Amino acid sequence: MRTLAQLSALVGGTVTGDASTVIHGVASIENAVPGTIVFADGERSFSLAVASAASAIVAPASCNSGPKPLVHVANPKLAFARMVAELVPSRAVERRVHETAIVDESATIGTGVAIGAWSTVGPGSSVGDGTVIGSGCSIGAGVRIGPDGVVHPNVTIYDGVRIGNRVVVHAGAVIGADGFGFVADGGQFHKFPQVGDVRIGDDVEIGANSTIDRGALDSTVIGDGTKIDNLVQIAHNVRIGRNCVIAAQTGISGSTTIEDGVMLGGQVGVADHVRIEAGAVAGAQAGIPSGKIIRKGTMVWGTPARPMSEFRKVFALVQNLPSLKSRVGELERRLTEIDKKTS
Amino acid sequence: MRTLAQLSALVGGTVTGDASTVIHGVASIENAVPGTIVFADGERSFSLAVASAASAIVAPASCNSGPKPLVHVANPKLAFARMVAELVPSRAVERRVHETAIVDESATIGTGVAIGAWSTVGPGSSVGDGTVIGSGCSIGAGVRIGPDGVVHPNVTIYDGVRIGNRVVVHAGAVIGADGFGFVADGGQFHKFPQVGDVRIGDDVEIGANSTIDRGALDSTVIGDGTKIDNLVQIAHNVRIGRNCVIAAQTGISGSTTIEDGVMLGGQVGVADHVRIEAGAVAGAQAGIPSGKIIRKGTMVWGTPARPMSEFRKVFALVQNLPSLKSRVGELERRLTEIDKKTS
Amino acid sequence: MRTLAQLSALVGGTVTGDASTVIHGVASIENAVPGTIVFADGERSFSLAVASAASAIVAPASCNSGPKPLVHVANPKLAFARMVAELVPSRAVERRVHETAIVDESATIGTGVAIGAWSTVGPGSSVGDGTVIGSGCSIGAGVRIGPDGVVHPNVTIYDGVRIGNRVVVHAGAVIGADGFGFVADGGQFHKFPQVGDVRIGDDVEIGANSTIDRGALDSTVIGDGTKIDNLVQIAHNVRIGRNCVIAAQTGISGSTTIEDGVMLGGQVGVADHVRIEAGAVAGAQAGIPSGKIIRKGTMVWGTPARPMSEFRKVFALVQNLPSLKSRVGELERRLTEIDKKTS
Repeated sequence: MRTLAQLSALVGGTVTGDASTVIHGVASIENAVPGTIVFADGERSFSLAVASAASAIVAPASCNSGPKPLVHVANPKLAFARMVAELVPSRAVERRVHETAIVDESATIGTGVAIGAWSTVGPGSSVGDGTVIGSGCSIGAGVRIGPDGVVHPNVTIYDGVRIGNRVVVHAGAVIGADGFGFVADGGQFHKFPQVGDVRIGDDVEIGANSTIDRGALDSTVIGDGTKIDNLVQIAHNVRIGRNCVIAAQTGISGSTTIEDGVMLGGQVGVADHVRIEAGAVAGAQAGIPSGKIIRKGTMVWGTPARPMSEFRKVFALVQNLPSLKSRVGELERRLTEIDKKTS
Repeated sequence: MRTLAQLSALVGGTVTGDASTVIHGVASIENAVPGTIVFADGERSFSLAVASAASAIVAPASCNSGPKPLVHVANPKLAFARMVAELVPSRAVERRVHETAIVDESATIGTGVAIGAWSTVGPGSSVGDGTVIGSGCSIGAGVRIGPDGVVHPNVTIYDGVRIGNRVVVHAGAVIGADGFGFVADGGQFHKFPQVGDVRIGDDVEIGANSTIDRGALDSTVIGDGTKIDNLVQIAHNVRIGRNCVIAAQTGISGSTTIEDGVMLGGQVGVADHVRIEAGAVAGAQAGIPSGKIIRKGTMVWGTPARPMSEFRKVFALVQNLPSLKSRVGELERRLTEIDKKTS
Repeated sequence: MRTLAQLSALVGGTVTGDASTVIHGVASIENAVPGTIVFADGERSFSLAVASAASAIVAPASCNSGPKPLVHVANPKLAFARMVAELVPSRAVERRVHETAIVDESATIGTGVAIGAWSTVGPGSSVGDGTVIGSGCSIGAGVRIGPDGVVHPNVTIYDGVRIGNRVVVHAGAVIGADGFGFVADGGQFHKFPQVGDVRIGDDVEIGANSTIDRGALDSTVIGDGTKIDNLVQIAHNVRIGRNCVIAAQTGISGSTTIEDGVMLGGQVGVADHVRIEAGAVAGAQAGIPSGKIIRKGTMVWGTPARPMSEFRKVFALVQNLPSLKSRVGELERRLTEIDKKTS
C-alpha cells in the first residue's frame, strides 16, 4: 500500500489530483477495482481507464481530463512496471543452499545465493551473489552464472556455459546441449563432436523449455539485454547481438548472425549462415533462407522472406488473381471477336 | 480377459454372433492377433477388420456382414476406447507421498494422492484426492491441483497456478512461467512484472514440454475439456474456451481469445489480440495476424489466414500462373499481329 | 597433444609436410591459433585455412598448395571429427549409481553404468553396459536402454519404451508420453487410451526438449542411425526409417511413415498418414498435408508442399505478378484503341 505521492516519486512523475490517494494494488483496465492503479498509453486506453473502477491512472502528459487522480510520466508503461514491482512483492526465497542440493566442493557459491532442492552444481562452477536457482536444476562443470540471476526449476545447463549478470532462465530450458552436427559418410551420419560453449550476456531472459546449443568448435553467443521467449531453438555457433527480442517457437539455425536490436516474431525460422543486420524485423512465421542477408532496419515477412511492402503488394495481387484471370478471359473473348471482324 | 458379452455390456452395445467369445486384448487392425478385438468406423475399415486375425469387431450398426462376432454401438471408437481402458490395466501407482518428496507443512494433500520422488510442493498449495504427481516435479506456492489428476515427471508449476479436476499434465510441461512482457526504453527492454496467474479448468490435458505462461496482471485461462498437444505455447492473458483441441507446436500470443470448440492444427501461429470464435478451425501452419477476428465456425488456412475455400481457389490459380502467363503472352502476340494488319 | 603423424594414422590419412608437427587442439578456421589443426572441404575453405594461424590442415587430395603441413583424406570433415574426439577429451564421468538414485530392485543395471543424482529407474527396466544417465531423469517401468548410450539430465522416459545401443538423448526430452488421441462425443473429447510403446533403434540421437509419443495401440518407431534435433515432435504411431535427419522444431503427426534417408528441414510440418519415401527431402517450414505421398528422392517445399522446382518456378511468377498485371492492363488499353479504330 502506497500513496499516489509515493508511487509518483518512485517513477519521477507528477501528480495531478489528490496525491494522498491510497493505492493497494495494480490492475488491468478491464479488471480494475477501487484502490488499484492502472496505466494508459494513449487516448483510447485513457478513456477506458477513466471509465474503469481504478482509483488512479498513470498516463502521458497529453492525457489529463477526468475526475481521477493521475501520475504523469513520459513512459507510462515503464513507470507502471516499476509500480507493479513495488506493490506486488515477489515471494521471499530463503537464501541458502538446500540440504539436498549437491554442490561440488570445487564450486564457488556467492553470498545470498539460493540453490533449490535436488539441484546439482558441478566441479569448478560458480554462482554469483544473490542468484536464485530453483529445484531440480542440473548445472554442469565449469559453468559460470553471474550475480542476481534467477534459474527456475528443472533447468539443465551443460558444462562450460557462461551466463552473465541478472539473467533469468525459465523452467525446463536447456543451455549448452550438443549442436546438431553430423558428417555424412556413405548414407550414415557420424557425430561431429560439439566442443564449443555458450556465452550469455547480462540482463538476458530465456523462456521456458527453450534450447540453446553449444558451439561446435567456437561459442554460441547471446548479447546483453536480449529477451528470448518460450520454446525457442538457438543452434550452434549462432551469434545474437544486444537488445534483441525473439518471440516464442522461433528457431535460428547454425552459424547465423543476428545483430543488435533485431526483432523476430513467433515461429520465425532462420536458416544457417544468415546475417540479420541491426534493427531488422521478421514478422511471425517468416522463413529466411540459408545464407541470406537481411539489411539494416528492414522488415521482412513470408517464406522465403521478402520486404514487408513487397510481400503485401504481391499478396494483394495473389488474392486478386480471380479478377486478373477474368480480365485475361475477357481479353481473349474480345480479341476473338476482333479476329472475326478483321478476318 | 473378458467375454464379448461383458465388453458389450460395458459400452451398452449389442452383440451379433458368439457373445461368449473370449477377448484377451485390444489391437489395431494391422496388428490384430487371435483373441483381440478391433474397431471399425466405416465400410473400409470394417472390411479390413473382417479380413484381419482379430476375434471380434466393434462396429457401427451399418456394418454387419462376415463371420466374426460383432459389438454394435453408435460410436465404435468411443466404445473401443472404453474397452481398451478395461482390458489394458494401467500400472498401479502406490498412493503415498514418497519419503524424498518435500511437501511444505502448510500444503494440503488429499487422500489417495501419490507424490513421486524428488518432487516439491510449496507453501499453501493443495493436491486433490486421488491425484498422482510424478517424480522430479516442482509445484510452487499457492498452487491448487484438483482431484483425480495426473502430473507426469519433471513438470514445473509456478506459484499461484490453479488446475481443475481430472487434469493430465505430461512430462516437462511448464505452467505459469512469466509472460513475455517487456517495456522498450531507449533501445533497451525492461521487464514488465508478470503478476497474474493461470487457471485451468476440468478435464484438460496438456502435452509434454508445452508451456502456458501466467497472465501479466490478470489470468491466463484454459476452459474445461480443452486438449493441448506437445510443445504448444500459450502466452500471457490468453483465454481459451471449453472443448478446444490444439495440436502440437501451435503457439498462441498474448491476450488472444479462443472460444469454445475451436480446433487448431499443428504449428498454427495465432498472433496477439486475436479472437477466434466458437467452432472455428485453423489448418496446420496457418498464421493468424494480430487483432484478427475469425468468425464462428469458419475454417481458415495459410499465412495470413483466410477462409479455406478462398485459400484453395487462389492456390489453384497460383499453381496455374504458368498457364496464365502463357495466355497473356499469346494475347500480346495476337494483338501485335492485329496491329500490323490494322496499321 | 599429438603429432600430425599420429593424427593422420588415426584417420588413415597421408601427411604432406612435417609429420612431426605437434598439435595441441582443434579450431575453426576463423579462430585458429598456432598449435591447432583445422579442416577444409573445398578450395574456398582451404585458402582461408592456409591464411589462418592454424599449424596444420586436414584437406582433400585436391588441395595441396601452401606452406602448412597437410593431412590428406577422402572425407576431411569426418577425419577432423575423429581428431576432435581424440584431442578434446570429454569429461570423465564416474561410473556408478549415485547414492541418491532410486533404482527398483527388479531393474537390471549393466557394468560401467552411471546413474546421476535424483534419477529413478522403475521396475523391470534395464540399462545396458557403459550407458550414462544424468541427474533428474525419470525412467519408468519396463524400459530398455541399450549399452553405451547417454541420457542427459532431466529426461523423462515413460513405461515400456525400448531404446537401442549407443543412443544419445539430450536434456529435457520426453519419450513415450501419451499420443494426442481423443474421441469426439457430442462436442466433448474423451481420451483414447494410449497403450502402445516407443521403439528406438541404435545410434539414434534425440535433441533437447524433443517429444516422442507412444503409439496408441502399436509402436512409434525410430530407425537406426536417425538424428533428431531439438524441440521436435513425433506423434503416436509414426514410423521413421534409418539414417534420417530431422531438424529442429519439425513436427510429424500420427501414423505417418518416413522411409530411410529422408531429410526434413527445420519447422517442417508433416500431417497424419503421410508417406515420405526413401531419400526425399523437405525444405524448412514445408507443410505436407494429410495422406500425401512424397515420392522417393523428391525435394519439396512450401505449404502445401510441392516439388522444389515447381515451387521456385511458381514463386518467381508470383513475385512477377506486378509485371503480369501491367501487361494485362496494357493489353486492355491497346484493345480499347483497336476497338475504337475498328468500330
